[in-house]
Amino acid sequence: MEDWDEVEAVRAVDREDMLSVVASLPEQIGYWLQRREEVEAIARRLRSPIEVLVTGMGGSGAAGDLLEKLFEDEVKVPILVNKDYEPPASVRSGTLLIAISYSGNTEETLSTYLLARRRGAQAVCIASGGQLSLYAQQRGDPCFQVPGGLQPRASIGYQWTPAALLLHELRLLRSDLPTALQETVGVLRRQNEALGPQVPEAQNPAKQLARALQGKVPLIYGCYGPFTAVAKRAKNMFNENSKIQAFWDVFPELNHNTLQGWEGVSSQNASFAILLLRDPEEPPRIHQRVELSKTLFQQYAPVHEVWAPDHPSPVVRAFAVAHQLDFVSVYLAILNGMDPTPVPLIQELKRHLGDWNGHA
Amino acid sequence: MEDWDEVEAVRAVDREDMLSVVASLPEQIGYWLQRREEVEAIARRLRSPIEVLVTGMGGSGAAGDLLEKLFEDEVKVPILVNKDYEPPASVRSGTLLIAISYSGNTEETLSTYLLARRRGAQAVCIASGGQLSLYAQQRGDPCFQVPGGLQPRASIGYQWTPAALLLHELRLLRSDLPTALQETVGVLRRQNEALGPQVPEAQNPAKQLARALQGKVPLIYGCYGPFTAVAKRAKNMFNENSKIQAFWDVFPELNHNTLQGWEGVSSQNASFAILLLRDPEEPPRIHQRVELSKTLFQQYAPVHEVWAPDHPSPVVRAFAVAHQLDFVSVYLAILNGMDPTPVPLIQELKRHLGDWNGHA
Repeated sequence: MEDWDEVEAVRAVDREDMLSVVASLPEQIGYWLQRREEVEAIARRLRSPIEVLVTGMGGSGAAGDLLEKLFEDEVKVPILVNKDYEPPASVRSGTLLIAISYSGNTEETLSTYLLARRRGAQAVCIASGGQLSLYAQQRGDPCFQVPGGLQPRASIGYQWTPAALLLHELRLLRSDLPTALQETVGVLRRQNEALGPQVPEAQNPAKQLARALQGKVPLIYGCYGPFTAVAKRAKNMFNENSKIQAFWDVFPELNHNTLQGWEGVSSQNASFAILLLRDPEEPPRIHQRVELSKTLFQQYAPVHEVWAPDHPSPVVRAFAVAHQLDFVSVYLAILNGMDPTPVPLIQELKRHLGDWNGHA
Repeated sequence: MEDWDEVEAVRAVDREDMLSVVASLPEQIGYWLQRREEVEAIARRLRSPIEVLVTGMGGSGAAGDLLEKLFEDEVKVPILVNKDYEPPASVRSGTLLIAISYSGNTEETLSTYLLARRRGAQAVCIASGGQLSLYAQQRGDPCFQVPGGLQPRASIGYQWTPAALLLHELRLLRSDLPTALQETVGVLRRQNEALGPQVPEAQNPAKQLARALQGKVPLIYGCYGPFTAVAKRAKNMFNENSKIQAFWDVFPELNHNTLQGWEGVSSQNASFAILLLRDPEEPPRIHQRVELSKTLFQQYAPVHEVWAPDHPSPVVRAFAVAHQLDFVSVYLAILNGMDPTPVPLIQELKRHLGDWNGHA
């Protein structure tokens, strides 16, 4: 697509306007900042947990990953993320289960919710409706009702923010989350102005990166900690928005295996491109690892960097990078002439799977 | 390489005899079965934990993944796996830290060990020597000393087995682990006879699979649970033994994102091959997902299946598949004329990184 600086040409491909949905991320976070009383009321009904288990698949699972990786250095009880039909054996009455399903009908999440409740876990649900909302109502479990109608992957702000604010209200976080969220909203709004479809490619780094990735297999390497969750989520956005294969990895672990996989890469029929997710606050030894690895990678594949903004809060920095990559994945879809919104293969699988009988 | 059924031709490429090291996996497990008194003695010195944290990188981290994924349905306290310089904030005096570093000198593991000890965690170390053994000695922490001289990735039996037996001796497992390990040894010995270099390609499924993967980018999809850890470890074996890029994913999560990434894959310059890690015991809904997904995948890439043997123990089934893929990764190296043992890019990075000053 050569005319993607023309709004009409973009709309002809992005038929359900995923670009506007991507741009709504700050408003999704702001939605819950305006409903803090609701979060406080739910927090008052809960006992202080000895373990937090977040269960959810796909875009809802990404909310779990972001909770774990943003807060594991603050929360003094284990945070576990589950993407399966069954909770781990550690789930018991002291566990706080946060069950997230945007539709409310994700069978893995329903299954884990029911099993965890049977073992006496406290539960909080996050859904736009569906069976999960009904289960919560029947059992008297608190449920954050999120606005519906979006693709689950594109509603991370609606799904993640109430869970994060709940941890804050339960006094599990050291940092000032509401202030960080306010500032996240501001940073993302400014990114909308810099990266939106109205900004032509020559001035738009997201469009430029999408073009550089055309025809390539993107490998998204998070520099550490929270950027693990951002890299994993970006891989999913390339899968679902751009409809291409993409992969993620993270420092320092990738220095122990993935790095070696470049030596014989010329024996493979594949054209990779590396996206390094960088953070101005990456610790010095991580910084050294990323810089040295970059020099090695450049012998084998083009390397692009996506930098988080300078800001003291990792919440702001992580969401800023996630939001940038949302734009890139949608622009890449548009370049390839693919409507970013529908997920026909996932729908086809669901049709073939048919109704769920309640067992894994 | 066309003459890989000739032992001399194979030895000319596999100069440090990785094939024999791969074949030693049953003896590595047997080594610890003969030292159960040592494990019992260490278990008697430990308090029952409220959380288990396994820290280790690369091949040692794979031991952590296998502990978590094989036992999370049995152990009634959270099992966390850490691959970083810092433990999560949940680490406290009730935590049992299992710190694994084959060399004993992995800086991330040393860092996490020291920080966790400072927070009062109990620690058990697993190492062939190095700084970790010294730290353990200085602090009076129990240390499983494993035989040295191998590549860390190829000593999973030495590193994983004492940790697993420790969980057994601490009465954290429901299943009869020693019996499962005995049977694992038997199954792996029979696999050595079926898959070793003495068996020509026409009768050797591991050689056949390696040939099918030549020039491809392997995507290793674990069917569920324990096969997550097996898929992740196999990806690392392809990176380090075969020196190629490879990637892993797992059901049911991949049905929510990765699946959709196939639709536009023809816009990417890459030749993928899918390896499905199958289990005769995969739950019915998972089985249905894998079978339906396979039909969809086959429109986009060749699909190969690696089946676990029929056996009631998931330990036997998971290690059998891991061992099969070890052979495949080494045969693929040999086909490509790559010595499987050395990891020059990882060594080069370590040289450039230089000595560690004790901080992330």
